[in-house]
Amino acid sequence: MSASARPEDTARSILAGDVRAAARLMRAIDDGLPGAASVLGLLHPHTGRAWLVGVTGSPGVGKSSLTDALVGAWRARGLTVGVVAVDPTSPFSGGAILGDRIRMQQHACDPGVFIRSLATRGQFGGLTASTRGVAAVLDAMGKDVILIETVGVGQDEVEIARMADTTAIVVVPGMGDDIQAIKAGVLEAGDVFVVNKMDREGAGRTAGEIEAMLSLGGRGDGRDQGWTPPVVLTCAVDGRGLPELVAAFDRHRAHLLAEGGWRLAARRGWAAQAELLELVKARLMQRVQARLDQDGLAVLAQEIAQKRRDPYQAADQILAAAMRDTEEAPWPAM
Amino acid sequence: MSASARPEDTARSILAGDVRAAARLMRAIDDGLPGAASVLGLLHPHTGRAWLVGVTGSPGVGKSSLTDALVGAWRARGLTVGVVAVDPTSPFSGGAILGDRIRMQQHACDPGVFIRSLATRGQFGGLTASTRGVAAVLDAMGKDVILIETVGVGQDEVEIARMADTTAIVVVPGMGDDIQAIKAGVLEAGDVFVVNKMDREGAGRTAGEIEAMLSLGGRGDGRDQGWTPPVVLTCAVDGRGLPELVAAFDRHRAHLLAEGGWRLAARRGWAAQAELLELVKARLMQRVQARLDQDGLAVLAQEIAQKRRDPYQAADQILAAAMRDTEEAPWPAM
Repeated sequence: MSASARPEDTARSILAGDVRAAARLMRAIDDGLPGAASVLGLLHPHTGRAWLVGVTGSPGVGKSSLTDALVGAWRARGLTVGVVAVDPTSPFSGGAILGDRIRMQQHACDPGVFIRSLATRGQFGGLTASTRGVAAVLDAMGKDVILIETVGVGQDEVEIARMADTTAIVVVPGMGDDIQAIKAGVLEAGDVFVVNKMDREGAGRTAGEIEAMLSLGGRGDGRDQGWTPPVVLTCAVDGRGLPELVAAFDRHRAHLLAEGGWRLAARRGWAAQAELLELVKARLMQRVQARLDQDGLAVLAQEIAQKRRDPYQAADQILAAAMRDTEEAPWPAM
Repeated sequence: MSASARPEDTARSILAGDVRAAARLMRAIDDGLPGAASVLGLLHPHTGRAWLVGVTGSPGVGKSSLTDALVGAWRARGLTVGVVAVDPTSPFSGGAILGDRIRMQQHACDPGVFIRSLATRGQFGGLTASTRGVAAVLDAMGKDVILIETVGVGQDEVEIARMADTTAIVVVPGMGDDIQAIKAGVLEAGDVFVVNKMDREGAGRTAGEIEAMLSLGGRGDGRDQGWTPPVVLTCAVDGRGLPELVAAFDRHRAHLLAEGGWRLAARRGWAAQAELLELVKARLMQRVQARLDQDGLAVLAQEIAQKRRDPYQAADQILAAAMRDTEEAPWPAM
């Protein structure tokens, strides 16, 4: 964000279609600049129209090729597309290896497609909050579909999956320890399953295992009970299975929008809860970090490492001290 | 924890070698029971003797076989071993698919080995804190080596790697998108790299790529500048490369202990900082969650989802309200 731009002006420019202003805001979100939240707050009433699609899976399952193919399919239907490629980066160097420039070259000149990689420099759980922020900018820009691509199978990915309207989990056959390949939490986060690289040995077996696991497990805690996730076999590089995958996404969207759209509303309510908790967590940790810098985190840590201080008591004391620093602010009216 | 056991009694039992008391405490840590912290606080002065080894990598790279082989190698040298298998689980169902019973069967009857899987039921970043807690119990029990095995390549795994004295990153050849297979942050967290399944095509190329990436990147922010991570090719299932891997671990340990052990002390200081921040974060989120339950998180979230409330302002207000609830407590004396 340039120091001179007022949040109102930036928000107005983005809503008027200024792509460079949008790109600057995304950069500010990724860098964790404090001004970004005010602009996002102003854009918030103008979001909610886009369809958020999450695509997640381990490294090497072919998510980038699949994203590429999906973008092509949606563009062929005249839909505009935003892509957020989440790229967990170093807490040590802040550098990201994977960049926009090596991705999605076939869509690079299409004005109906906007691609942004997130390097997530922030140290304290900023990944999910940044992803939501960038998706919100794309939404406010008027993109019809926003695809959020994440690498991994852990807690971070499940949290990102929670923000999407439709989430696809991508696996490949023969990943070795099949029982490890899909964890319970990740399994339950999927609305659509993709077995990519369908020519590899064991593709049918992998699909059958996923179906078996899905039929075993309950889908509790706010997830949609009325939807049985389909398992689709694809070969992203030559396009086989792509029409079936696009159709599976469409069916899920129709399911969310059926009966007045109460399922979509409920799902977005859950997503907003997760967003709120993420935002509070990020703000809390910024404040604790500021307090700790001030009071000598390194000294405390050395005392703990030398077994002269109990870390659990120290944590309680830090918490109490950080909270004492807080100025008064009103509780949001219900 | 049984309601009747005093923290002092539990700690004394564990230090006296009571394996069942230790297992109960680990269960309490995994369940996030509040009593666990007091026992861990009492055990803390009795920890620090064990060598903490982290082993991380994507699903299917053969971490379990490698863990198995390493445990065998250390046992053959007369060392006792603890294993913490971190198993990120569902935020929706709380269930874990991978259990102790299907793991490490060859060591199941060896009293010199203690294996504990962590299911991490806690919702708020409890994974790292729970892992540290269980490792601390194994340390207090007198295990010589504690192996922490994690699945994944994301931020969570990097945080867990930070708590180990020596961290190994495991990959396999031919994971497809090689550039995606090792992210910058994960790369920099590794002290030793393992290319497992060395018979697969491209093993030498993968090893070469890792070496090239290591020679490119700086290792900033408290990491050890004087150590060049070796890349070891292994076949965990038949034991090839295992002696070389064990030797690489030994060299890293000797490096940490050289010159009076200042490198180990510095590294454990960093680990203690990370632990302290994790503990504070977990406590903060418990408090925020309690405050939000009380004040209608669902109502706020619906207002946000319906675009009637700005999530960023709401987060600031929740934070201020949660902090107002705090009782006074002294800042830890320096």
